Amino acid sequence: MNTQNTGRRRGPKPNLDTRENLISAGLEMLHSGGYAATGIKDIVDAAKVPKGSFYNHFESKEIFGKEVVDSYFNSGLYELRSLLNDKTVPPLSRLRTYFAQKMQASEQLGYTRGCLLGNMSLEVADHSSEIRGQLAAHFTTWGDLIEQCIREAQQNGQIKNPIPALSLARFILNSWEGALLRMRVEKSEAALKDFHDVVFDVILI
Amino acid sequence: MNTQNTGRRRGPKPNLDTRENLISAGLEMLHSGGYAATGIKDIVDAAKVPKGSFYNHFESKEIFGKEVVDSYFNSGLYELRSLLNDKTVPPLSRLRTYFAQKMQASEQLGYTRGCLLGNMSLEVADHSSEIRGQLAAHFTTWGDLIEQCIREAQQNGQIKNPIPALSLARFILNSWEGALLRMRVEKSEAALKDFHDVVFDVILI
Repeated sequence: MNTQNTGRRRGPKPNLDTRENLISAGLEMLHSGGYAATGIKDIVDAAKVPKGSFYNHFESKEIFGKEVVDSYFNSGLYELRSLLNDKTVPPLSRLRTYFAQKMQASEQLGYTRGCLLGNMSLEVADHSSEIRGQLAAHFTTWGDLIEQCIREAQQNGQIKNPIPALSLARFILNSWEGALLRMRVEKSEAALKDFHDVVFDVILI
Repeated sequence: MNTQNTGRRRGPKPNLDTRENLISAGLEMLHSGGYAATGIKDIVDAAKVPKGSFYNHFESKEIFGKEVVDSYFNSGLYELRSLLNDKTVPPLSRLRTYFAQKMQASEQLGYTRGCLLGNMSLEVADHSSEIRGQLAAHFTTWGDLIEQCIREAQQNGQIKNPIPALSLARFILNSWEGALLRMRVEKSEAALKDFHDVVFDVILI
């Protein structure tokens, strides 16, 4: 995240650096500790911003949570799009590379944290329609990119499975979230390997 | 849960009804609201037990959480075993019935709550080795029952898929958790239907 904004605004308008610092600190804390377990005071302290500044930038913790979810998803979206839309690479290879990278990233984090979208889905989706709506939108964007690869591979004959690309993409994305869930319980790559084997040896064939 | 225990113990030993009331109230609150969002005072109030009684029964909130997880899983275990071990029904039909029942139960809850094991996995597994260990054990027990059905169906030729039953069972269980996650975001049965279609039309064939 860019915190080196040189065009700082001062005066009556809320300071954009403060806002970014809050989101950056909040993202770290919500991802590692969870939404309910993280208090506004914790976030303000971690962001090293004045105590009263939180509500100058965010109406509520809920609105803040929604913006953290956006920041998390959007920070990876450019790379996600570049990789999955790269027509110079066969569509199935793009998907393989994508999930291989995600598996490696999970290993580097010691099989902790998982996906913030998934975490917020289970912790907050029943209680906040604001956050739930945003999670739904991001999952749709993410799934659409996977669907596009699957459709291309079905069209070029690389995938023979006739189930509609949309259903396959949705299933695979949800199964990835489920694999991350089990990974965090087992603290091993076993669930990610099961995911990889079934997705690439049984489903996308 | 049986709260009609007629053999109440009184005196110096902690009251078993109080303990059961606390677990029963805690299960309801942790499932609907989450672990961090539920305070010990909330649980004690909901259980209508004396304020000081919590720590007579549970060393800590963490130990309480572990017992709630056990109570949740064990309360469904007899039915789960009866259904998935019923040799009078073809193994694939048992699995179909099992997931159809789970889908119906999810609909009845308005696509809220999901699975407490899954919720605790994402919210607590990184922070409590006690609870994490218990979640891992319950997922293993659950997966083993699914594996047994798949193995039987592979042996009798109902399933031709040659991937080891253990990997398929683990993948399917994790994908079920992922489907519940997406269901809670979408508040619809769509993710459960995707799960059903891919599992029974692509994987277990």
